[in-house]
Amino acid sequence: MNGNFNSVLLETAVDELSKLPGIGRKTALRLALHLLRKEEQAAYSLGEALIRMRRDVRYCPRCHNITEEPLCPICSSSRRNPKIVCVVENVKDVITIESTHEHNGLYHVLGGLISPIDGIGPSDVEIDSLIARVEEEKIEEVILALSPTMEGDTTNYYIFRRLESSPVKITVLARGLSIGNELEFTDELTLGRSIINRIPFASPSR
Amino acid sequence: MNGNFNSVLLETAVDELSKLPGIGRKTALRLALHLLRKEEQAAYSLGEALIRMRRDVRYCPRCHNITEEPLCPICSSSRRNPKIVCVVENVKDVITIESTHEHNGLYHVLGGLISPIDGIGPSDVEIDSLIARVEEEKIEEVILALSPTMEGDTTNYYIFRRLESSPVKITVLARGLSIGNELEFTDELTLGRSIINRIPFASPSR
Repeated sequence: MNGNFNSVLLETAVDELSKLPGIGRKTALRLALHLLRKEEQAAYSLGEALIRMRRDVRYCPRCHNITEEPLCPICSSSRRNPKIVCVVENVKDVITIESTHEHNGLYHVLGGLISPIDGIGPSDVEIDSLIARVEEEKIEEVILALSPTMEGDTTNYYIFRRLESSPVKITVLARGLSIGNELEFTDELTLGRSIINRIPFASPSR
Repeated sequence: MNGNFNSVLLETAVDELSKLPGIGRKTALRLALHLLRKEEQAAYSLGEALIRMRRDVRYCPRCHNITEEPLCPICSSSRRNPKIVCVVENVKDVITIESTHEHNGLYHVLGGLISPIDGIGPSDVEIDSLIARVEEEKIEEVILALSPTMEGDTTNYYIFRRLESSPVKITVLARGLSIGNELEFTDELTLGRSIINRIPFASPSR
């Protein structure tokens, strides 16, 4: 599939598309030919949307979520509880947690996790700004919503140590069975945790 | 994943990306966030490559392959045999056959196959122009390189009937075992054909 495309323009488009993660040259060619078959407006809308997004999207100076306003819509909302801050790894996790509609506070996007093996230390992620926010904004609860991985746990522990002397309440997302998954296929560590942290049985409504 | 993206620009980019075939909203979001993390030039190059390709790519008036020149590079090459024309369904098939380096003639891109069930008749694909070319350019061999499917076979047969009275030689790609595949997994129809059309054994060099 590295053949002659008979068109430098097609070749350039395929080259650019195949730089995207998970898009190989075969897929890139399929996408480019799709755009060639479609009405001109389709390629224009896509191309312009990508350019405009990259040019105008900014990071919220308070929580580091993306936005094109001076402050992101979550930070500037009067209907959110500004005393509860949910700490997440990245922008995608904000979207994921928002889709549950279970968090009504604000966010703090770290932009990564502490990972000594990858040379990522505490100063490479937005932890200092989190510590400063907790004090300045008199945050009452910090919810640590990082992935239950080595890096997530390291970052959780580091943040915990930095906030230990502060009166802020620090919580972490519950670990337990995935809803809908068979008990049999739950790993032993998670299953063990879910026994230790068992909760009173409640009616299925909630 | 249909949540609030906190950015209209991100949402627009995700909407546009997810219009591409095989790209769902989750993948589109991953691609958009990737572009946001990368240097600005990455999104600009991709966006502009798509727009420019769609704007400037033309179809070769002779073989209907894509090109940005008045005639495609294959048609205008003096090193190709203009008396042999390989008939293919689409532009991608030209690239695929070119990558084998086994065809030294020209092409004719039909832009589709006859498919009565989808309402695609002979006049919806470039068959009239093929018949005209065979006569005007005094083509000596037409190689039918369409997929061995119901639509491909129907189109092959239709072209054959239209050219029957012409002195042109009409050939079709060999059907047989896929190289590297186990005999056991070859379907009976293909296996049967490969027995009927068996060829003299040759040394492995070719």
